[in-house]
Amino acid sequence: MNQKIERLIKQFAKLPRVGNRAAQRIVLALLQTRDGRAENLAAAILDATENVVPCAICGCLTDKNANVCEFCRDMSRANGQLCIVRDMGDVWTLEKSSVFHGRYHIIGGLLSGATGVMPDDLNIANLPNRIKDEKITEIIFALPNTVEGKTTQHYIMSVVGGNVRFSELASGVPLGGDLDYIDDGTLSLAFGGRREL
Amino acid sequence: MNQKIERLIKQFAKLPRVGNRAAQRIVLALLQTRDGRAENLAAAILDATENVVPCAICGCLTDKNANVCEFCRDMSRANGQLCIVRDMGDVWTLEKSSVFHGRYHIIGGLLSGATGVMPDDLNIANLPNRIKDEKITEIIFALPNTVEGKTTQHYIMSVVGGNVRFSELASGVPLGGDLDYIDDGTLSLAFGGRREL
Repeated sequence: MNQKIERLIKQFAKLPRVGNRAAQRIVLALLQTRDGRAENLAAAILDATENVVPCAICGCLTDKNANVCEFCRDMSRANGQLCIVRDMGDVWTLEKSSVFHGRYHIIGGLLSGATGVMPDDLNIANLPNRIKDEKITEIIFALPNTVEGKTTQHYIMSVVGGNVRFSELASGVPLGGDLDYIDDGTLSLAFGGRREL
Repeated sequence: MNQKIERLIKQFAKLPRVGNRAAQRIVLALLQTRDGRAENLAAAILDATENVVPCAICGCLTDKNANVCEFCRDMSRANGQLCIVRDMGDVWTLEKSSVFHGRYHIIGGLLSGATGVMPDDLNIANLPNRIKDEKITEIIFALPNTVEGKTTQHYIMSVVGGNVRFSELASGVPLGGDLDYIDDGTLSLAFGGRREL
């Protein structure tokens, strides 16, 4: 196979959710249909890479020219609620559901002994200042429901201290979830957190 | 969502086998991990787009600086066999299986009344010259086993004429194929083409 093609396929195959066969199909589509699509894609990648940076306050991806992101700029979101998430994808998911109207704080990962992620690797240090500056009254943890997620959550609670309420997303059976397909851990959490009717 | 990010997600979502959610994950991976991956990908796209062209003889993607592709250059492949395929992906598939050692001819599509693909849209016109110049004795059709594939095959046979043997890939039950999961059309072809033992 041509070296330039092989190099391009390898680059695509490194992306998340793209396997080797999908990468081949993508490269074929780019090289066989000469409609400017390939050049547009390359330009969009370079444009975004150069001009999109994390917001200095919350970590959300935003325009380099804007001082702060759309969420930190929006005063209607200064309602005292701060939602702590792992990454920008989680912000997009929450925004799509329109379930939260406060500010976000992206920590950029989870504490993990296995992969060696330490508190200094995460965007946690400026949290106490944010709470004071933005008069945060409630911190909502929307971290993954895993050992790493819970560990990170407890660490953040110990750093932030007691002048704020903490909450986390409820655990339980998903909407439309059949008990047959629910794992034991979720079932046990759903039982423990059962609501009286 | 940031406009540059949205534009990039849309570009990725247009690629084959990449949906909207996968495109989001890809863009996050490119923008959150600043390891030069995004720049490398953009450079590889531009490099391949500029320097990879279809071989003037067979249509295989090849280096712009090479006059003809690796297959047309390779004299050990001048064995009189010419395999007609739809696109470069089919060449890669056949090459991986090492089942064929002759030359290829990519026609670039299939005749179709529905999508308006006419003979002039396909790379067929220079086939008679190839057959003469390269002393082709057998043309092997490896086109999709569909109405469009068979129509295209018959059209090519009528254009090329009778000084060459024609063959097509066998139809039947795939290796490891359970009869329960085979469609009626395949089953009927497998019956019609049954081998005596």
